[in-house]
Amino acid sequence: MPSPSHHPVVALERAALARWCTGDPGGFLELSAEDVVYFDPVVPTRVDGRPALAAYYAPITGKIFASEWRMIDPAVTEIGEAAVLTFRFVSSNGDGPRMRWNCTEVYRRTGDGWKIAATHWSFTGDED
Amino acid sequence: MPSPSHHPVVALERAALARWCTGDPGGFLELSAEDVVYFDPVVPTRVDGRPALAAYYAPITGKIFASEWRMIDPAVTEIGEAAVLTFRFVSSNGDGPRMRWNCTEVYRRTGDGWKIAATHWSFTGDED
Repeated sequence: MPSPSHHPVVALERAALARWCTGDPGGFLELSAEDVVYFDPVVPTRVDGRPALAAYYAPITGKIFASEWRMIDPAVTEIGEAAVLTFRFVSSNGDGPRMRWNCTEVYRRTGDGWKIAATHWSFTGDED
Repeated sequence: MPSPSHHPVVALERAALARWCTGDPGGFLELSAEDVVYFDPVVPTRVDGRPALAAYYAPITGKIFASEWRMIDPAVTEIGEAAVLTFRFVSSNGDGPRMRWNCTEVYRRTGDGWKIAATHWSFTGDED
């Protein structure tokens, strides 16, 4: 088993994040499976399926930017054809507030490479 | 494949939630794998491993109660020996505020039954 930080899903996630932070959600859409399920701290329900995720992302395309971002302490738990990636994420844009996130990504190994079957983004608890 | 609402992990989760809502985190501890990874909206880092989760839960044992709770729209994605359960959760205690949660639980099938390999709790976004 590869070490967590060298697991292939970490590089896939970093590449999608790099695109996300330049306003481009396409990296995550391309990685997401047709049956992806998705939670984030803004949308009031689970988003079910890639078409619904694409519709959700469409109006924010080109609107989210982070000039600095960092993936913190990625860990991967392999369960057969699944790889569960968990990490924290810190992002900021110039003088804007620093955003702190928790993320869980469940990847599924397919003939077409690793695809995201479940995404969960949320805000990290305060340090105090 | 069983329908999502009848997948065995849904009943396991409901039973652990019922105990949780009477102040008893033991149901989740018993379900959690030794290598569980855990996020919630309060703790400032990922909690790694069942011993750390037990230490985190210890001081809140007997302190969290919800007289009413409801699991909303549970879905299960099976990936080989993994079952990814996602749902929303609403809880309240008498006249207290209604809490609204998103949850992702990654279960792993083992010789000892289904065990939780990854937990992610967060607050649901506002409806507005």
